[in-house]
Amino acid sequence: LISNHLHPFSGLVSFCCSVFERCRFSPENALISAQFLTRADLRGIDSHGVARLSGYVRLIQSGRLNPNPEFSFFSRFPTQIQLDADRSIGFLSSVRAMQLAMEAAEKFGVGMVAVKNSNHFGIAGQYALMAAEKGMIGMAMTNASPLVAPTHSRSRMLGTNPISVAVPSLKSRPFVLDMATTTAANGKLEILQRKHEKAPMGWIQTAEGSDSEDPEELKSGGALRPLGSFPHSGSHKGYGLGAMVDIFSGVLSGANFGPWVPPFVAFLPLASNLVGDGIGHFFLAFRPDGFMDQAEFLSRMEVWMEALRTAKPIGQDEILIPGDPEWKTEEERTIHGIPLLPAVVEDLNRLASELEISPFFAT
Amino acid sequence: LISNHLHPFSGLVSFCCSVFERCRFSPENALISAQFLTRADLRGIDSHGVARLSGYVRLIQSGRLNPNPEFSFFSRFPTQIQLDADRSIGFLSSVRAMQLAMEAAEKFGVGMVAVKNSNHFGIAGQYALMAAEKGMIGMAMTNASPLVAPTHSRSRMLGTNPISVAVPSLKSRPFVLDMATTTAANGKLEILQRKHEKAPMGWIQTAEGSDSEDPEELKSGGALRPLGSFPHSGSHKGYGLGAMVDIFSGVLSGANFGPWVPPFVAFLPLASNLVGDGIGHFFLAFRPDGFMDQAEFLSRMEVWMEALRTAKPIGQDEILIPGDPEWKTEEERTIHGIPLLPAVVEDLNRLASELEISPFFAT
Repeated sequence: LISNHLHPFSGLVSFCCSVFERCRFSPENALISAQFLTRADLRGIDSHGVARLSGYVRLIQSGRLNPNPEFSFFSRFPTQIQLDADRSIGFLSSVRAMQLAMEAAEKFGVGMVAVKNSNHFGIAGQYALMAAEKGMIGMAMTNASPLVAPTHSRSRMLGTNPISVAVPSLKSRPFVLDMATTTAANGKLEILQRKHEKAPMGWIQTAEGSDSEDPEELKSGGALRPLGSFPHSGSHKGYGLGAMVDIFSGVLSGANFGPWVPPFVAFLPLASNLVGDGIGHFFLAFRPDGFMDQAEFLSRMEVWMEALRTAKPIGQDEILIPGDPEWKTEEERTIHGIPLLPAVVEDLNRLASELEISPFFAT
Repeated sequence: LISNHLHPFSGLVSFCCSVFERCRFSPENALISAQFLTRADLRGIDSHGVARLSGYVRLIQSGRLNPNPEFSFFSRFPTQIQLDADRSIGFLSSVRAMQLAMEAAEKFGVGMVAVKNSNHFGIAGQYALMAAEKGMIGMAMTNASPLVAPTHSRSRMLGTNPISVAVPSLKSRPFVLDMATTTAANGKLEILQRKHEKAPMGWIQTAEGSDSEDPEELKSGGALRPLGSFPHSGSHKGYGLGAMVDIFSGVLSGANFGPWVPPFVAFLPLASNLVGDGIGHFFLAFRPDGFMDQAEFLSRMEVWMEALRTAKPIGQDEILIPGDPEWKTEEERTIHGIPLLPAVVEDLNRLASELEISPFFAT
């Protein structure tokens, strides 16, 4: 793999901010969007960061993404809100939704917000983390374009539908589970494609539903497999979890769901007979101190983490707490910068030239 | 496998009811416990039904399970309750907890109840289903004795920690996801042990953390593996989900968590330096009509189910909705009766003779 230049994080944020402003976002919305997009690069989930910036721009150009959305709300109970995102970029609707969930939790213990008419929101973990940073427990999930075949299915019926859960602790950085409900997320296929390597068995199936090791298989009608990979090793569980995410994010919110979820790439057509608006997300925040004193909860959480970290490892392996790898990457990249593939930098600079803004390298 | 006699469901319930009454449960509590224990047999999760009845009796005899619990409550917000189950059998505390969650949801949209100081609650799905039967969405989870090794760990740090989610639909039976967060639940190992068959790779590891196909491996220090089985196929995700269940059920409730969760079998000693009381559960109920009209939600859910059911199958396979296999079994067994292994019937009759009640066969 070609060694990547390191770029200061602030440069990524300000470049994305310029792009979004140029696409008619308000300065405030451009900044929030830039920050929540690049958080993926900072935390090491490179597939969801600036590598997708031009994808969002294409969505704006195609009219599927509204640069100046006005949110509207439906609410019947103090703890539940449906947010119509007015075709917003997912970052803005999700930040707003999580804030509303946290406000409800502040007053009533729990808050949940279902978002429809939205677009992709980057990495789920950052929204769950907003709650954990305020001492709450947060959950975030989203549906996504259908690339996953349920157990026994040849058809792609669900997205990689991630779930995230964040829990604060006393001294340690928060627990942050952030997982696609598939065996491997799409980003892992992209890495293999670049390296021209095979995928392990269980990640992918062909259009006929047979095992495949070809990371390009999705281009010829193949599908990702749900977590568990095969019926004998629990793929119906990964399918069930992906289904839950789709129901919470899509069915409940009024968004599209299942095979109707719009593709991220603007050049692919929408499904016909759409069943809702845009894609959907679901957010939950709740207070641990509804169950016991906050200090007691945090110290119990620290004991939990300590116990897990000091379990007996296999060989020299390290037992990680969910979120540990991302915290480590965030620390390193904050200091040393973000490595970007030359192809990604080229893409950013093509975009700069097209939009007539300063190139990325100049930042 | 020896063919099993079929027993009418009502006979199972009334036998268990007699056993619980004989163990000093109030008639009402005995009946609820009997109904919620045998629901596992009815729905085809044989490992969690009457096969465990004598296990619960041993817990009562050892003093770890209180036949006459008095629940107490801590609540700071209208949507959140911590329930101290006073060493109750899990059925009673869980039914009560789910009722309280649903009452809170009725008024405020959402309710969540964390239970400590409890014992095993049978199958998680039946509590989630209580909510779905009232038109709500329900979730139920529990921690359990440590039999599972996190990714890269030789130590058993977590239980099979099931998650259940139930969602009502318009015409179809509810969606009921009810899954251990391991590749295979313990009950599947028991079936292989009886048949003297090997386990598929990925279910189990040895005490040193190597792959094992031996379903008896846990007796010599081996462990179950989290859903995903191997690091390359996402076992860190199954581990993360099991961790979430442990945090919600154990850390948050005040129960034991991780390696401290008490074993189900009464003859195994408790861990030293317990970090809480008994085992823990977590329940959530919320109203779909906080987000859109109930009728609209139900019909969207029906569209979702219909789409999934009519996906293109691999060969002649059937694409199932989570819960379908259990609904089918429940229907068949309601009509034809429950098949029990001779060894299970013998165990019930030993219990009858020990407790000096009418034998099971006579019912």
